[in-house]
This record gives sequence, structure tokens and C-alpha cells, in this order.
Amino acid sequence: MTGDKNHKGYSLKVNKGVEQPSSVSEEALQRYKNIKQKPLIIDDYIEGIRSGHRTILSKAITLIESSLPDHQETAQEIIERCVPFSGNSIRVGITGVPGVGKSTFIEEFGKHITQKGDKLAVLTIDPSSQRSKGSILGDKTRMELLSADPNAFIRPSPSSGTLGGVARKTRESIILCEAAGYNVIIIETIGVGQSETAVHSMVDFFLLLMLAGAGDELQGIKRGIMEMADAIFINKADGDNLEKANIASQVYKNALHLLPPAESGWTPMVDVCSAVAGTGISNAWNIILNYRDLTKKNGYFDKKRMLQLKQSMLETINRQLNEDFYNTPVIQATLPQIEKQLFQSQITSFAGARKLIDIYIKKLKGQDG
Amino acid sequence: MTGDKNHKGYSLKVNKGVEQPSSVSEEALQRYKNIKQKPLIIDDYIEGIRSGHRTILSKAITLIESSLPDHQETAQEIIERCVPFSGNSIRVGITGVPGVGKSTFIEEFGKHITQKGDKLAVLTIDPSSQRSKGSILGDKTRMELLSADPNAFIRPSPSSGTLGGVARKTRESIILCEAAGYNVIIIETIGVGQSETAVHSMVDFFLLLMLAGAGDELQGIKRGIMEMADAIFINKADGDNLEKANIASQVYKNALHLLPPAESGWTPMVDVCSAVAGTGISNAWNIILNYRDLTKKNGYFDKKRMLQLKQSMLETINRQLNEDFYNTPVIQATLPQIEKQLFQSQITSFAGARKLIDIYIKKLKGQDG
Repeated sequence: MTGDKNHKGYSLKVNKGVEQPSSVSEEALQRYKNIKQKPLIIDDYIEGIRSGHRTILSKAITLIESSLPDHQETAQEIIERCVPFSGNSIRVGITGVPGVGKSTFIEEFGKHITQKGDKLAVLTIDPSSQRSKGSILGDKTRMELLSADPNAFIRPSPSSGTLGGVARKTRESIILCEAAGYNVIIIETIGVGQSETAVHSMVDFFLLLMLAGAGDELQGIKRGIMEMADAIFINKADGDNLEKANIASQVYKNALHLLPPAESGWTPMVDVCSAVAGTGISNAWNIILNYRDLTKKNGYFDKKRMLQLKQSMLETINRQLNEDFYNTPVIQATLPQIEKQLFQSQITSFAGARKLIDIYIKKLKGQDG
Repeated sequence: MTGDKNHKGYSLKVNKGVEQPSSVSEEALQRYKNIKQKPLIIDDYIEGIRSGHRTILSKAITLIESSLPDHQETAQEIIERCVPFSGNSIRVGITGVPGVGKSTFIEEFGKHITQKGDKLAVLTIDPSSQRSKGSILGDKTRMELLSADPNAFIRPSPSSGTLGGVARKTRESIILCEAAGYNVIIIETIGVGQSETAVHSMVDFFLLLMLAGAGDELQGIKRGIMEMADAIFINKADGDNLEKANIASQVYKNALHLLPPAESGWTPMVDVCSAVAGTGISNAWNIILNYRDLTKKNGYFDKKRMLQLKQSMLETINRQLNEDFYNTPVIQATLPQIEKQLFQSQITSFAGARKLIDIYIKKLKGQDG
């Protein structure tokens, strides 16, 4: 699907000897027709995902997003069996404030990618918004052509949950998409709050879409987000807006010069594009491929992925340790008393913490006695 | 020392009926003369601190900063006994990049405060720098007049440690200073890294010192730090620099307008000052007093302090849970294996985390069996 087509370096190479999806057997196709009638067993999911069956992939992601313990258990088994087939992709984060034209950009960008012969999955992270509740239809409407493209898989945001939970579900969905043969993964995020940081922690390349403003380009940017960007594209660079966009592009280039050099050895690129006019789109994709080539060569690509995996594990451990602690009944019962002592200047925050930890450890040990 | 002097509202009021330091007894003075000869008992420390004896206060803070378990134990006892006498102060964080003139500003600002009859303690947080290793002399030299002022207590940064550790030590030092009757606490921080966030989490009022630049005022600011500021003062507004400073002041005022309104009900103030010429200093102090009056009245002052205490306790719990976890031998032995499986795409970060947590919980429970 990818490495053997050899599009003059445009297609992604299979580096790890990962087994590629087999074609769907007639028998399997027959079975899938009945998926609405009977529940699938794990093997059905694995075979369906590995053969690139989109409805099965979609159903598996629904299990990941479900909060039912049964679903979670099945999902974890599916993920564990898909992990060995994951990783063979380039993961691209795309962000930008509402109105910047993300959907139109991703539609054009996605068509360009699938025309090159690659398979594209688009996932969305939007934990802060109620918008996502009804966004399946929304996203399909937003990206009409891409939705109909057999080489594209579009999946809207999980409908609810904390950022930590949503981030985990997206990480797991990436694994399934990669196991299903999608070798370009776009993670779209709405330009608000902390979701950019979460997306940055799970992608290889981070693309920031901006608009040309009226001379106030820098004031609107969250500095931390600009520091994360591997490329900034000024969208809607068409018609009367083109000159403004070129000026904005220069402003951003100057601003990026102020940042310290990145460990990747990559210099963040700034350019203009117009998703509506279709200009600058292939340039954006070439930049991403250049980035991949550079960082694969200097080792940063793999190093970053390993760091991301480790960071994700440490964050999960931290979250779990805290959840276990605060869900313990004796802690829930004692915390308000300690807080009262704290607020009345009877103890320090350090002593209060130490007391609660001692109670917790004692409780844990006591459960066995 | 404070409330009863009634400097037309300039002095801080004692709100909680906190017992004020007694004068030092002749007998105690005699005993203090021998402090270099014999070790102090806890009662000596408490009496010394409560009577405002600076050498004793200094020795107690040295115990807080020590990493020896014996010293830590003594320090915790001293702190616990001082906590009931703490809180009666206004805590002011002052930050700004090196070269902005923080030392000179604090010297002038401090003299202004002590002349009003208040007692001032100046603590410094600088976890990132080796500079602090020899900074006792450095700080004393930096603030010559203030060092000689009987109503000022200047204590340089703890010489080493993580930001979390340094922050905790500073919090504890604040308690001792307040118990010793210091009713204005300045926490100075070097304008680098994360220390501003730590300082912000322990002060009532956050003052940012800036310099007038050459039209690029906004680019140099970390947006997050500007959002924390309750006031911004453009320092070195003297001579040829005055006009530039006034322009910069206007730029910052405009930039602050872009920020959402603060929960405190306070609008961040921007003004110019010159520590060298002594201008703008009393204005800075008046602004802080106005802030205190407003937030005491609308309840935000106390609410913020309670939130800070609670946040500090939760952070300590989180740090302690993680330390306990990663210091467990079986975790230290297993972590590299799990990481290897993670990096070889054999498990997910979530499954890896779950495995380690299960091992940890089992180990904890087993210790009792």
C-alpha cells in the first residue's frame, strides 16, 4: 500500500517489517454483512481492522470511547492485539482558532494525500466543547469529499470526558487506525485551552494555521503554541487578502527567529496557503515529508515517539495514583477535616499532605491483614 | 506593631486576633548570646522567633533548608508551632528579567515600607541558578541599606533543590517570618523558567518589573507571566529613558486590556518608576494597599489564600504519591522491562501503567501479610 508504490519519496516507507493488511476474504465480507445482527467476537474485530474494514474499525473505536466496563475490557484486548501493527505512519497535529478554515484545509490537504496513494485517518480532539455531541453528522458535512474518499477515514471527537481521558482514547484510536493500514494520521484540535498540548504529545509534526490580521498578528498567539509549531501556514491567502497574508508570514518568521533552536534540528517553516483556491497545499505536505526525512535520518523521529510513549505512561501512572488515592473512602472522609485544620492555621499544607498519605498507606496495608 | 499604629490605613491590620510578639526578656537575650556555643531546644527557637530575634529566625530557616533528617524533624516542629501565628501579612511577589533593576527597586521599596512602620522580610526563589550558592554575601551587598535596617530581614535563596522543594521551603520560611512579626513579605524571583508560577502560588500580589525596549515590548514577555501580574511597573523611567518608558507603559496597558477580567475584581495597573531616582515607589506601595483593601472587602484575599493552601497540599500529595511509587524497589526493577515492551510495540502506555500500578498495590498490601 505504501512503501512498494514508490512515489518518488512521497509515500511513507514501511520501516519495521510490519505485516500489511491482507485483502478481505469473501467469507469475512459475508460475516461483516451481519454485524448489525450479532455481536462481534474479538477475532472479528482484529480481522476486520487488519483488513481495513471501516465499519469494524469504527465500531472498535466506539468501544474505546464507551464508558461501560464490558466495552472497555473488549477495547483493551483489541488494542493490545493491534499494538504490534501500529506505528507505521506519520502523525500530524493541526490546530488553529475557530474560523481559520481548518475543515476546508483538511479536506484539500486530505485529498492531496490520498491522491498520492496514502491512506488517511482524521481524528478530532475537542474535549472542551459540547459541539462534539452531535458532530458525527457535523464532521461528515464539513468534509464532504474526503468522507466519500475510500482512502480516508474521518472520525469526530469522543463526545465527552476529561482532557486526559480524551487524549488516551485518541492515542488508542491512532493504534487501531494504523493497524488498519492508515499511514497518515491527522489529529485536529480546536484552538482553545490545553488540547494543543495533548495533541502535541501524540504527533510527529505540529501544524499551526493562522489568519492574517490587521497588524496585530503577534498579540493573538499563545506563545506556547507557537513554540510547539513545526510549521505555520497563513490560510485564506487569496484575493485581496494575499498581500496581508504575505506580510503576516514575514511577521511570524521574525517571531520564530526569537525562539531557541529545536532539538529536532528542524527550523519551523512559515508560508501562506488558500484551502479555497487550493494553493500552498502540496507545499505543506512536502514540508511534512522533509521533516520526516530529516528527523528519521538524525534519529529524532524515533526518539520523540519513544519519549511520547514514556511520557504517556508516566502521566497515566500519575493520574491513576491520584484517582486511587482520592477514591479511597477513608481519604474522602478525612480530607475535609484536614482542610479545615489547614484553613484555620492549625497545620501546614505539608503536614496535612503527610497525614493523609500516612492514612492512605496504612489503609492499603491493612486491607491485606 | 501594625494595626495599633494606624498610619491612615497604610499599616496592615491584625484581623485574626493573632498574638503579637512579646518583647525580648533579659534572660532570653542572655541565652541567645550563647547560641553559638550550645544547640538550641525547640522552645528557644519558638521564643526567639516570636520575639523577633533575627539570628534565631535565620537559624530556624537554615534548618528548613537543611536536608539532614534530624534538622528536618526539628524544622517541622518549629513550623507547626509557628503556624498559628502566621498569615498576618501581605505577601508580594516581585519578578522581572535580570537587568531590570530588581535589587535596587526592592531596596527603595523596602525602605519606604519600613519607614511606614511595617516590618519587611525579603525571600528569594532562584532554583535554576548556581548563583545562589554564594549569594548570602551577594544579597547583602546588593541591598546594603535594607540589610542594615532593623525592621528588614533579608534571606537569600536556598542553595539547591528542585523547584517543588524550594517552593515548599519558601512557604515554610514565610510562616516563620510572619510568626516573627514581619507583616510585609516580598518573594523575589529571577525572571526565568517556572519559578514565577511557584511564587504566584504563594503571594497575594504579583508585581512584574519591565524595561522600556525599542518598540518590541510585547515580544519579550511570556504571556503567561503577564496574565499573572496584578501590576506592571516600567523601571528605569528616568532621564532620556522617561519618554520611552511612558510609551511602553501605554503598550502594556493596551495589552492588558486584551486579557479576560480577573476574578479578584482588580484591574491590573501599569505605571513607570525609577528605583534610582526614587520615583514611583510610593505609588507602587499604594497600589498594593488598594489591592489589599479591595480584595479584603470582596472576600477574594482570603479565598485566594485558602485556594493556595489547598493547592499546595494537593501538590505535596501528588509529589509524595509519585515519590513513594518510584522509590519502591520492585517498581525500579520492573520499570525498565515495561519500557522495553512499550518501545517494542508490545503493549500500550496505558497497559504498561496499569501493570506497574497493579504490582505496586500488590506490594503495598503484601507488606502487611
